[in-house]
Amino acid sequence: MPRFQSEKLNHEVVLRDPIYGYIHIEDKVILDILQSKEFQRMRRIKQLGPISYVFPGATHTRFEHNLGVYELTRQICDIFAKKYPSIMPGDGLWDDDNRLLVECAGLLHDIGHGPYSHTFEHLFDTNHEKIGQQIITNPNTEINRALKQVSSNFPDLVASVIAKTYPNNQVVKMISSQADADRMDYLQRDAYFTGVNYGRFDLSRVLRVIRPYRDGICFNNNGMHAVEDYIVSRYQMYQQIYFHRVGRSMEVILHHLLQRAKDVYQHGNLKVTPSLSKFLEGTWTLDDYLKLDDGVMETNFSMWIDSGDPILSDLCKRYLYRKPLASVRINEETKNLLPKLNDLISQAGFDPDYYTDINSAFDEPYDAYKPTGKNANSQIEIMQDDGTMIELSELSPLVRALNGTFQGDERFFFPKTMLSQSNEPQIFDPLYQEFQKYVRNGELRYLRKPKKKS
Amino acid sequence: MPRFQSEKLNHEVVLRDPIYGYIHIEDKVILDILQSKEFQRMRRIKQLGPISYVFPGATHTRFEHNLGVYELTRQICDIFAKKYPSIMPGDGLWDDDNRLLVECAGLLHDIGHGPYSHTFEHLFDTNHEKIGQQIITNPNTEINRALKQVSSNFPDLVASVIAKTYPNNQVVKMISSQADADRMDYLQRDAYFTGVNYGRFDLSRVLRVIRPYRDGICFNNNGMHAVEDYIVSRYQMYQQIYFHRVGRSMEVILHHLLQRAKDVYQHGNLKVTPSLSKFLEGTWTLDDYLKLDDGVMETNFSMWIDSGDPILSDLCKRYLYRKPLASVRINEETKNLLPKLNDLISQAGFDPDYYTDINSAFDEPYDAYKPTGKNANSQIEIMQDDGTMIELSELSPLVRALNGTFQGDERFFFPKTMLSQSNEPQIFDPLYQEFQKYVRNGELRYLRKPKKKS
Amino acid sequence: MPRFQSEKLNHEVVLRDPIYGYIHIEDKVILDILQSKEFQRMRRIKQLGPISYVFPGATHTRFEHNLGVYELTRQICDIFAKKYPSIMPGDGLWDDDNRLLVECAGLLHDIGHGPYSHTFEHLFDTNHEKIGQQIITNPNTEINRALKQVSSNFPDLVASVIAKTYPNNQVVKMISSQADADRMDYLQRDAYFTGVNYGRFDLSRVLRVIRPYRDGICFNNNGMHAVEDYIVSRYQMYQQIYFHRVGRSMEVILHHLLQRAKDVYQHGNLKVTPSLSKFLEGTWTLDDYLKLDDGVMETNFSMWIDSGDPILSDLCKRYLYRKPLASVRINEETKNLLPKLNDLISQAGFDPDYYTDINSAFDEPYDAYKPTGKNANSQIEIMQDDGTMIELSELSPLVRALNGTFQGDERFFFPKTMLSQSNEPQIFDPLYQEFQKYVRNGELRYLRKPKKKS
Amino acid sequence: MPRFQSEKLNHEVVLRDPIYGYIHIEDKVILDILQSKEFQRMRRIKQLGPISYVFPGATHTRFEHNLGVYELTRQICDIFAKKYPSIMPGDGLWDDDNRLLVECAGLLHDIGHGPYSHTFEHLFDTNHEKIGQQIITNPNTEINRALKQVSSNFPDLVASVIAKTYPNNQVVKMISSQADADRMDYLQRDAYFTGVNYGRFDLSRVLRVIRPYRDGICFNNNGMHAVEDYIVSRYQMYQQIYFHRVGRSMEVILHHLLQRAKDVYQHGNLKVTPSLSKFLEGTWTLDDYLKLDDGVMETNFSMWIDSGDPILSDLCKRYLYRKPLASVRINEETKNLLPKLNDLISQAGFDPDYYTDINSAFDEPYDAYKPTGKNANSQIEIMQDDGTMIELSELSPLVRALNGTFQGDERFFFPKTMLSQSNEPQIFDPLYQEFQKYVRNGELRYLRKPKKKS
Repeated sequence: MPRFQSEKLNHEVVLRDPIYGYIHIEDKVILDILQSKEFQRMRRIKQLGPISYVFPGATHTRFEHNLGVYELTRQICDIFAKKYPSIMPGDGLWDDDNRLLVECAGLLHDIGHGPYSHTFEHLFDTNHEKIGQQIITNPNTEINRALKQVSSNFPDLVASVIAKTYPNNQVVKMISSQADADRMDYLQRDAYFTGVNYGRFDLSRVLRVIRPYRDGICFNNNGMHAVEDYIVSRYQMYQQIYFHRVGRSMEVILHHLLQRAKDVYQHGNLKVTPSLSKFLEGTWTLDDYLKLDDGVMETNFSMWIDSGDPILSDLCKRYLYRKPLASVRINEETKNLLPKLNDLISQAGFDPDYYTDINSAFDEPYDAYKPTGKNANSQIEIMQDDGTMIELSELSPLVRALNGTFQGDERFFFPKTMLSQSNEPQIFDPLYQEFQKYVRNGELRYLRKPKKKS
Repeated sequence: MPRFQSEKLNHEVVLRDPIYGYIHIEDKVILDILQSKEFQRMRRIKQLGPISYVFPGATHTRFEHNLGVYELTRQICDIFAKKYPSIMPGDGLWDDDNRLLVECAGLLHDIGHGPYSHTFEHLFDTNHEKIGQQIITNPNTEINRALKQVSSNFPDLVASVIAKTYPNNQVVKMISSQADADRMDYLQRDAYFTGVNYGRFDLSRVLRVIRPYRDGICFNNNGMHAVEDYIVSRYQMYQQIYFHRVGRSMEVILHHLLQRAKDVYQHGNLKVTPSLSKFLEGTWTLDDYLKLDDGVMETNFSMWIDSGDPILSDLCKRYLYRKPLASVRINEETKNLLPKLNDLISQAGFDPDYYTDINSAFDEPYDAYKPTGKNANSQIEIMQDDGTMIELSELSPLVRALNGTFQGDERFFFPKTMLSQSNEPQIFDPLYQEFQKYVRNGELRYLRKPKKKS
Repeated sequence: MPRFQSEKLNHEVVLRDPIYGYIHIEDKVILDILQSKEFQRMRRIKQLGPISYVFPGATHTRFEHNLGVYELTRQICDIFAKKYPSIMPGDGLWDDDNRLLVECAGLLHDIGHGPYSHTFEHLFDTNHEKIGQQIITNPNTEINRALKQVSSNFPDLVASVIAKTYPNNQVVKMISSQADADRMDYLQRDAYFTGVNYGRFDLSRVLRVIRPYRDGICFNNNGMHAVEDYIVSRYQMYQQIYFHRVGRSMEVILHHLLQRAKDVYQHGNLKVTPSLSKFLEGTWTLDDYLKLDDGVMETNFSMWIDSGDPILSDLCKRYLYRKPLASVRINEETKNLLPKLNDLISQAGFDPDYYTDINSAFDEPYDAYKPTGKNANSQIEIMQDDGTMIELSELSPLVRALNGTFQGDERFFFPKTMLSQSNEPQIFDPLYQEFQKYVRNGELRYLRKPKKKS
Repeated sequence: MPRFQSEKLNHEVVLRDPIYGYIHIEDKVILDILQSKEFQRMRRIKQLGPISYVFPGATHTRFEHNLGVYELTRQICDIFAKKYPSIMPGDGLWDDDNRLLVECAGLLHDIGHGPYSHTFEHLFDTNHEKIGQQIITNPNTEINRALKQVSSNFPDLVASVIAKTYPNNQVVKMISSQADADRMDYLQRDAYFTGVNYGRFDLSRVLRVIRPYRDGICFNNNGMHAVEDYIVSRYQMYQQIYFHRVGRSMEVILHHLLQRAKDVYQHGNLKVTPSLSKFLEGTWTLDDYLKLDDGVMETNFSMWIDSGDPILSDLCKRYLYRKPLASVRINEETKNLLPKLNDLISQAGFDPDYYTDINSAFDEPYDAYKPTGKNANSQIEIMQDDGTMIELSELSPLVRALNGTFQGDERFFFPKTMLSQSNEPQIFDPLYQEFQKYVRNGELRYLRKPKKKS
């Protein structure tokens, strides 16, 4: 039985936090991670990326979210240690020897993220999960050195918790499951900073009823509705915040902007800060990655406005000055209209490769059981008085309605000007009018219903 | 009597805001300003600069604050137009013809700010007030073009409101006075994002009792305590948030970092982004200024870590990785100890020019009347039932206690290591111990009380 | 076209309210209603009755809720008058001439409620809807006199709005529909005072998208998720607050207590306050009804502790000192066990007539269309960009899941002592143990699965 | 050293609370007190009495406040036990053996209160402190029996903590001092239910810095501003909520109503519920006292409307239907005008004995040291880094301004009709006009400045 211990701080350190009041730090290793350059870098990476273009308050960063997951993990350990302490191995209760391990995993679960992770990864072949593992296990990082204070294999153990290979499922599921500290923190936090209240489920009640059991973490039955409400909050946040069409539009622009920058860079001279140039060249190392942040990216975009390439310049302006593309919902059937529409867009002077895109955003709010999926066995279980378990969707009509479904939409993005309605006739007006015939109630439609193939 | 009008939008545009729920926009000119590149740039300048190093939630930007001041101005106009509409010129009531003017002034009152304004201005001889006037009146800016939709002299009028030279004092004081929309917004907003509640005075009550009168804006007597509480909130926010010793420490580092960069740049080669280089050369234009933001600055700091200059490199790391200096309170008497202390710091290996500083932070929470000051005649007046006025500090013992006082402290900043207490003897330990004799309860003290000069 | 007008107050009157900040009153008729004795009486009737025994904060009264519905109605009128003013009759937009009428209806929609309405009505053959109509239309009430200031038939018109017979459906549905001011207020208010956050849907967004249309009130499609969240909140509040088993247990006790009091009164002498005696005699008038409130009821209960009737005395103590009955969930099948269980309860010394009960609590969170029901045609419609309507459950998977379903449970209530587990053997222990065999996971079960009838 | 222990509950019991989220109960003795009839009675006594007539949300009761003080006491014990555990007697740290004692004292500190305590005590010679001691120590109460589970002298010890005679000052001051759990709870709670935010100081920070020391309880110096803000909140709540002129007016009416009822009762027949009759006869016992609550009082008022005594009937209506008296501020000088004004009031048909009154409301927000006062030695001390103490008003300009002062006003109450301004001349109009000459800006004034006596 490993026992993970760290030097205790002389005085507890606290950080103000709008969600929990304070983040509490008692262990030197936690403080040392916090003060590492790899962790401080998270201060410069926004949690929700371009969504701050839609919800101006959403400027909060991955730094605060990571701290929040740590704090929530710490609070859950406190609860488990008090109410469900393991007496002997195998009794299915909480072994508080794992506390420091799970706290570190909570603090570091997202450490591999860079600026605009999803878009960036797609274009530059980075992978935030792998990079996160490296930051933790590479002996050259300050985080690795901090973790080794506990023991030489502690970094590997922390990495294994995040990779879900650590053998104690209670530890793993506190960080990664359908009701983990990660999600509970970001739902609350993103709601607070955007200023909406969809994400504000009853955390205090969820913490009242959360408990360890043999295979992981479950909830007592008198808290079923609080867990149900958490699932609904999650659904609402995805539909209303994370999948907002304008936020996705800015991501589409970002993607095309970076794609164009790659092209321009390869064919000539593009002024680039040193930190980013290695990625355009494809020769980046971990050190280069750790120098990236939102500000570096935007500084490059700002320089590229004067790059001489009109498309790159225009896309950079659109991103920095918030000129989103318009969009309409599409489906498998109406997708067939896109060649026609792209043709019109092309005639109106826009290169469809850079000014249009299809973007899908779907989330599975809850999944009761997917034996072959990567979340296998992470369904939420509600413990009955006699200790038996009932899976959440059997108890809740709302969760049952969402269970196994994918909620969201697929959209076609294109220049807003295609929807313009001018008072005085302009040269492109007939094109625009033609285009607009295909749009109704925010979605594409056929002018004449296509005949069913017989 | 000028009548300022703008095309109305077909549909009201709203932005989510955690403070007011929504920001409401009905005028095309407001939306056009919002969408200008000069205004969008504010998204990349944090409202509280390095204070986010102390309160991690404080990542909100000048963009949201400016929107907030606009919204509050708009709400006050609504109240004035409904409750106190002017019937004839000179009746001391509200002339709603000024609405669009004061809304634009509210939206643009801070438009001249750049990254880390106060530090930057000191070193590079910029001036956010003058630059703000330029952005509004220079015919090359998008903001100027937007404002001219209303009338050709509208930009100048907006600028005059911000410069406090516009003749209608009700308009001027809504934006600039001891109880203006600017302060009311930032106190609430900064409190929300830092997660404290000192700044949360009773805005709804203040808006219940605010009213125009002949010389400006006053408050009905049944809201005296709400206004009093606002002054107390202001005092608390300055003492606890804006003057936090760690935030000031990061500003001290920033100042030395930029000073050092100037020196290094002048004596050789320092890699600098194009936007910043003009400032180091002293040849900047408005366009250069508008390219600066927090991200640009930090991108340069990140590059300068590899500059080869050890002091610059170290200061950049201290800033980016949050390694604040320590500090103690000083006063006129104990200031005399600083040469002695600087000597010790020097012996410990730190150049006092770059690693120590004196920093004063004092605020005058309220000033009843300062005939020669720049806030002359901006005292807060409470209207009695019979229309006579009583100045706030005559009614409130709390405001009276703060009236005309300067609250804050003066601090000496130095490397934290000077306070270190090692378990095993180290080479510099005697120096540290000597240094620490002069520090007690967070302030400097004489080992022996100095004799009074006779 | 009737035009309802009232003298305006010299100064707007406001009342502090935790939900809206302030309740605003500008019309003399509203203030006069508020100050009537019939309305002030609502201060002494708790909104949630015995639920304050479960959620101690829930001491708020019908007075505040009625004010809240008025305020919300007033705000909706403001929005409609500004955004959707009717130009000509029949255009399907809002005719603000109805404002005062709908505000009065909002303020008075619950005026007929007495203490513990549902229980009381069942036993004393009162009817809060009919009484409400009387209070409004009876010329002897202060409310009637206040309403007549507007016009002689104004009381009847207000009554017709509440009775849903007023011809303008927009007016009727603002007060009574599946998304009306009544429900929106009580969900928010009950959540605030109980201290839960299930009821806190995004009211500001709902108000952004609410709009009049030909047949009533609908919502713009960009607010679909806010309306969806409101339905979910409603569901959560019913399941977690209004249907709480302990609250229902206190209602069961109340019902038996009043039943027993009737019996004792008829057979002899029971000390009763004058206000209640008329109900026990069956000779009550409106004046008697208006003298009832929670305090009167509890004062009688307190006197009846010394009534000499042991059952009545015990039930009064149980109610006043909060000694709830225990309960288990039952269903059609397990109901057949109740005779057996009642027999055991009887043997343990309790009269099942007074100490057990069956209580059903089911709510239909949403109903898309029920042509024959009393809510026919009150389904929630979402207006598309082109003005067509889509019914809410077609758009929301959550509402679809709840649509037409009845959520809740049926419970059997019995003395808690039946579940006691003593350490030392007591006389009734074998009875208790026998009883407990039938209880598992909070519900009744058969010891042996009953055979299916063939 | 006594060790107070109670049987632990099998499962922690929690109650929802809007201030703390949950009230946590782990000890059987706490639950037994809570379930006693003497404690349940507090559910029927409003915390703020007639102030709910001004702030409609303020219907919360002494029940919740007492629970809140318990919860806050429990949290402070948790903090002290974790951060400052006593190692040996006399070390000035916290001896957690006192936990159950101080928790019970917190729960019971206000148990002696009856309905409208202050008014009632004045008229019926009751004393809530003495009665509270009786409820705790009288062997016939359920509370006494519950406390005796701990030890036979435990009731006396709990009583001694409340009476401030218990030898451990840390225990006493947690319940009774200028910064105790009692005040901290009611400021927050009253602010929440009234819907204002003056009372919402930074409790989480105060709990961060509170600590035991030799003579009691003090605060670490890094929390000075949070404690300062708490004092300001206290000042604001008194000035704006507790001393509201309309709330005081209702108390004045209540006082006259009860006085008149005494008079009428003595001179003839007045229908009275049994519980109150003993007080009118002056023969009450503890049992009678425990039967009183707000509802009982109001039930009597309601009956007295039909008493036949016109003054008593009118005062009861004024109370139940909320018809406050008007009031003006007076001072020592303008008090001399009252005979003149009472004469006018008399001529207008009101008996000044029942329809006018003088009411003083002054609070001392903070007192640094009053050697002879009953709060001697309860000043708030701020602990410096080196363990020395500085008294709060030496550090805070705001507290210094309030220190030792009495804030509030003295008012003259009279029938509102004296201020009426009719459009058509009425019989009493000359009287009213004469009266109104003496009123200006809410206070009395001399028509001619009286000559100074020479």
